[in-house]
Order: sequence, then structure tokens, then C-alpha cells
Amino acid sequence: MVKPLADRVVLRPVDREEKTQSGIFLPDTAKEKPQEGEIVAVGPGRVEDGKRIELEVKVGDRVIYSKYAGTEVKVGDQELLILRESDILAIVEQ
Amino acid sequence: MVKPLADRVVLRPVDREEKTQSGIFLPDTAKEKPQEGEIVAVGPGRVEDGKRIELEVKVGDRVIYSKYAGTEVKVGDQELLILRESDILAIVEQ
Amino acid sequence: MVKPLADRVVLRPVDREEKTQSGIFLPDTAKEKPQEGEIVAVGPGRVEDGKRIELEVKVGDRVIYSKYAGTEVKVGDQELLILRESDILAIVEQ
Amino acid sequence: MVKPLADRVVLRPVDREEKTQSGIFLPDTAKEKPQEGEIVAVGPGRVEDGKRIELEVKVGDRVIYSKYAGTEVKVGDQELLILRESDILAIVEQ
Amino acid sequence: MVKPLADRVVLRPVDREEKTQSGIFLPDTAKEKPQEGEIVAVGPGRVEDGKRIELEVKVGDRVIYSKYAGTEVKVGDQELLILRESDILAIVEQ
Amino acid sequence: MVKPLADRVVLRPVDREEKTQSGIFLPDTAKEKPQEGEIVAVGPGRVEDGKRIELEVKVGDRVIYSKYAGTEVKVGDQELLILRESDILAIVEQ
Amino acid sequence: MVKPLADRVVLRPVDREEKTQSGIFLPDTAKEKPQEGEIVAVGPGRVEDGKRIELEVKVGDRVIYSKYAGTEVKVGDQELLILRESDILAIVEQ
Repeated sequence: MVKPLADRVVLRPVDREEKTQSGIFLPDTAKEKPQEGEIVAVGPGRVEDGKRIELEVKVGDRVIYSKYAGTEVKVGDQELLILRESDILAIVEQ
Repeated sequence: MVKPLADRVVLRPVDREEKTQSGIFLPDTAKEKPQEGEIVAVGPGRVEDGKRIELEVKVGDRVIYSKYAGTEVKVGDQELLILRESDILAIVEQ
Repeated sequence: MVKPLADRVVLRPVDREEKTQSGIFLPDTAKEKPQEGEIVAVGPGRVEDGKRIELEVKVGDRVIYSKYAGTEVKVGDQELLILRESDILAIVEQ
Repeated sequence: MVKPLADRVVLRPVDREEKTQSGIFLPDTAKEKPQEGEIVAVGPGRVEDGKRIELEVKVGDRVIYSKYAGTEVKVGDQELLILRESDILAIVEQ
Repeated sequence: MVKPLADRVVLRPVDREEKTQSGIFLPDTAKEKPQEGEIVAVGPGRVEDGKRIELEVKVGDRVIYSKYAGTEVKVGDQELLILRESDILAIVEQ
Repeated sequence: MVKPLADRVVLRPVDREEKTQSGIFLPDTAKEKPQEGEIVAVGPGRVEDGKRIELEVKVGDRVIYSKYAGTEVKVGDQELLILRESDILAIVEQ
Repeated sequence: MVKPLADRVVLRPVDREEKTQSGIFLPDTAKEKPQEGEIVAVGPGRVEDGKRIELEVKVGDRVIYSKYAGTEVKVGDQELLILRESDILAIVEQ
């Protein structure tokens, strides 16, 4: 298992067919191309002024994130992405 | 539904005919081209020094925002924009 | 009406003839070209450390501002400018 | 009258003959060319952490300031300069 | 022994065969190439507002870190890397 | 007299013969060329969080400073330099 | 003697033969070339929020530091380096 540090999350990118089901479509012509994914692990939050700030997203959330953010890793067969919570734009509620 | 994180909002861009009704005209020759839109979702606010700062705008507000700000998403038929509250210049009161 | 957010103001640029009356002349050869205007709306101020900082300028003030600052909007017949208070250099007292 | 905002001052640049009297000479070959002037108005100071920080300079002070700082304005016959206090290097005591 | 300062750690990079055992694979085509390593020493943490912030990682942790981060040193036969904790993306739990 | 503002100092650069006496030699081949000088005036310190932070250097100190820092002024016959305390690297104790 | 200001230290660079004895070898092919040295003087620490933060290194420490950091000075026969503590990566314990 991959446990992200500070305000980072690990997410599983969601492919095009899955996106159609959720009703969110991310156009190719978008100025800043976003992507959709599912959170699989969250960090403990970063520390500011001696207090830890918990993340707003939780495991299982479907999110829209900035396409050029993060670092790809592969665990077994799964391609995952490690990125900061600030690169997540919104939660998709279904 | 798309639920923005931190100090982000989701807005629906307003087209030219609607703008004429509100009496605000945004000239093509403007130095920094602004746009008009309607807020459809607001984030919970960002956390600063352990306190959450609520947004000044609320759902239903008509706002002027910086044209080159934000990320386009499409939910069903609707083209929406996710952007930070700091990219909103003013509320248009009708 | 246009209601600016945070530390922004809306002002009406003042043209050359009006400037002559106020006795302030802004030379074309100035290193950073300033402009004169009249404040028509002020924001509530930005929040810092949980406290809102009110603006120093108020509606009706004649001010000198940096020429390349702000965003132009047109409300009915009036051309207005939305800019941050930090782009205002001084108040002109008459 | 021109009333500067925040931590800005208005000063009257002092010409070459006046400088000779004060005994300060600012060489043409200086790396960063400074200038001498007399303060004619001071702002109320900027607000930091909810407290206003008053300026160190006062009306009537002769100061050395960075040549490329500030914005020129002309009030009646007088050419003045609006600049931030941080662009003032030192007070010249006579 | 090498004792890192502030929020720095010393780690031993893990080679390709070892990575296969842990089940994490870091693709060559990744946008920002990450690496895997084992923490061999941690600093006492940096001081912020008079309080020392301890590190989240500890000696023995297997971590994923950004490839272009840090400074290589060689102690005896061992090639080690000194880097900041903020360049560590995640802990690999086995 | 020149009275520096905030965290600035006025110093008199020390020439090569004087440097030989103090035993400090600043090589021409240095990566960042330092210079030696004597403090002739110090500012009251800058204000941070409502508290004034006094300077570590005092009038009469011999200091090493970064060569490309500061602004040259000439008072009567004396060539002086106004610079920030942060551009002073060390005090030379004799 | 040279007394560094704020969070600066003075160190004596250690040459190649000495390094062999300590068992630390700094490869020529390193991405960011580090160097080894011995601390000969430490500053009192920088002031943050009205509190002085003491340095972690002390006189006599053998340290690894970033090669391109600091300013060279020569005291008598000795070539020394003045640099900030943040440019020191680790203490070498023998």
C-alpha cells in the first residue's frame, strides 16, 4: 500500500467510459485540461502553526483534478497518481 | 453535482443576450477581458491560521470574473467553470 | 449596480478637462503613467488573520491610480474600472 | 492637495543647486542612482496584523530615495513624486 | 554517520530488483520520475513559530521520492541521498 | 549627517591598505566578491508583528558586506554606502 | 576573528585527504556537488516573531554543505567561507 505524506492523496484515474456514467464530461478543448479520479489514500494533512489541517477529501471520493499535476506510480497492475490536495478542484457527487 | 473544494466556486457563464438585460456590457477592447456568470456552487472556504474563511459570494449571485481564470467542465448539457473566489472581481446587483 | 469583492473598488475615470479643474496634471512623460478617477463603489475589505481590513478610500473620493491597473466594465453608458485598493496611489483633496 | 494612501509619501525632488547646500552629493556613476527630496505629505501607514504601522518620515524631512521609484504627478506648477516609504533610503539631517 | 539538519533526511536508493519485490513499479514514462528508497537518518525537524515540527518519516521507512531532488554523498561503500522531507511523496507499506 | 531608515546602515568602505592591517584579505577570485567597511550610522530597525527589531551591528563595527549591495552617496568628501543589514555577512573583530 | 551575523556560519573547507579519513566521499558526478568543512564560528541566529532561533550546528562540527553557497574570505593564511545555516545539509559524526 502507498501512504501519502502531508497534504498529498493517492488517486486512481477514471477512464472515459466511467466518466460517461457519472455525467461529467471534461472537454478536450478545455483551457486547463482536468481529469476525473477516485481517491484511494489520503495523507494526514500538513502542519501549519503547530496544528495539523485535515484534508477535505476522503477515500472513495470521486474528484476532478488538474491534468498536469502529480506523479504516476504503478502498484501491481494499478496505475495510480500521487498529488497534493490543492490540485483537486472539486468533488463529484453522484 | 460538482462540489468545489476550499475557496473555489462553480459558475455558469452567462451569454451575450443575458448580459444585455443586466445592463452590464463587457467591451471587447478591455485590457483584461472580464466575463459574467452565475454562481451554482461554492466551496467551504480555505483554512487560514486554523480558521475557515467563508466565501463572500453565494449560490445565485451574478458575478464578473477574469476571462482567463478557471477550468471548464461539462455536467450533462451544461458548460460550467471551476475557479477561485479571488478570480471574481465583483457581484452584479440587479 | 456593481459591488466589488474584498479590497477592490469601482471607479469612474476622470477625463482631461475635469483634471484641469482639480489642479492635478498627470504628465505624458511620467515614468509610470497615473490616472485620476472618482470612487463609485468600495468592497468590504480583505480578511487577514480572521479580521476584515476596511478600505481607506470611500465613495466620492477623487483618486490617482496606476494607469495599467484594473479591469474595464461598462454599466449602461458609463465606463468603469474595477481595481484593487493597492493600485490607488493617493486621494486628491479639493 | 494630494493625500497618499497606506505607506506612501509625496515628495518634492530637490534640484542640483539645493543639493550642494546640504553637502550631500549623489554621484552619476553610482550603481543604483539615488535622488534627494523633501517630504510634503505622508500616508497613515499600512495595516499589518490589524495594527497600523506609522511612517518613520514626516513632512519637511529631507530624504534620499531610489531614482527609479515612484510615480510623477504635477500639482499646479509643482512636480511631485508619490512613492512607498520602503523606497526611501535615509533622512538627511542638516 | 551522516546526521541531516532541520527537515532533511538521508536515504539509501533502492535498485530495480528490490522494487519488484515491494510490488511498486515506477514507470520510465512517468511525467515526473519518482524513485524508491529507504530512510537511514532523519533530521530533528525545522522550527516554525518557535516550535520544532517533527518529521513524518522514520528510519527504516520505504519511501517514494522525487528523482531530481537531493544531494548524493558516499559513505564508505554506500551511495546515499540527502533531501528534504517535502521531496518525499509517500511511504510504501509492505 | 545621513540617518538610515528601518534596517539600513550607512558604512564607509575600507580601502586595501587598511584591510591588510586587519588581517582580512578578500580575494579577487571570490565567487561573490565581499568588501570590508566601517559602520557610521544604523537605522532603528524594521517593524515585524508590531515590534521593532534592533540591528545586530553598531556604529564603529568593522564588517564584511556583499560587494554588489547598496547605494553610494557622497557626504562632503566622504564616499559612503547605504545598505540593508541583511547584506552584511559578518563583523570583523580586531 | 570573523563573527557571522544572524543565521550565518564561518567554516573552513576540508581538503580531499582529510575527507578520506572521515570516510565520506563526495563524488564528482553528483547532481549538486556538496563539500565538507569544519565550523569555526556561528552567528547568534535569526529573529522570527520576536524570538531568536539558535543554530543547530556548533563550532567544531564537521558538515556537508552545498558547493555553490557562501562567500569566500581569507583571514591571515586561512581561506574561510561565510554561509547561511540553511546551506548546510548534514553534520558528519565521526
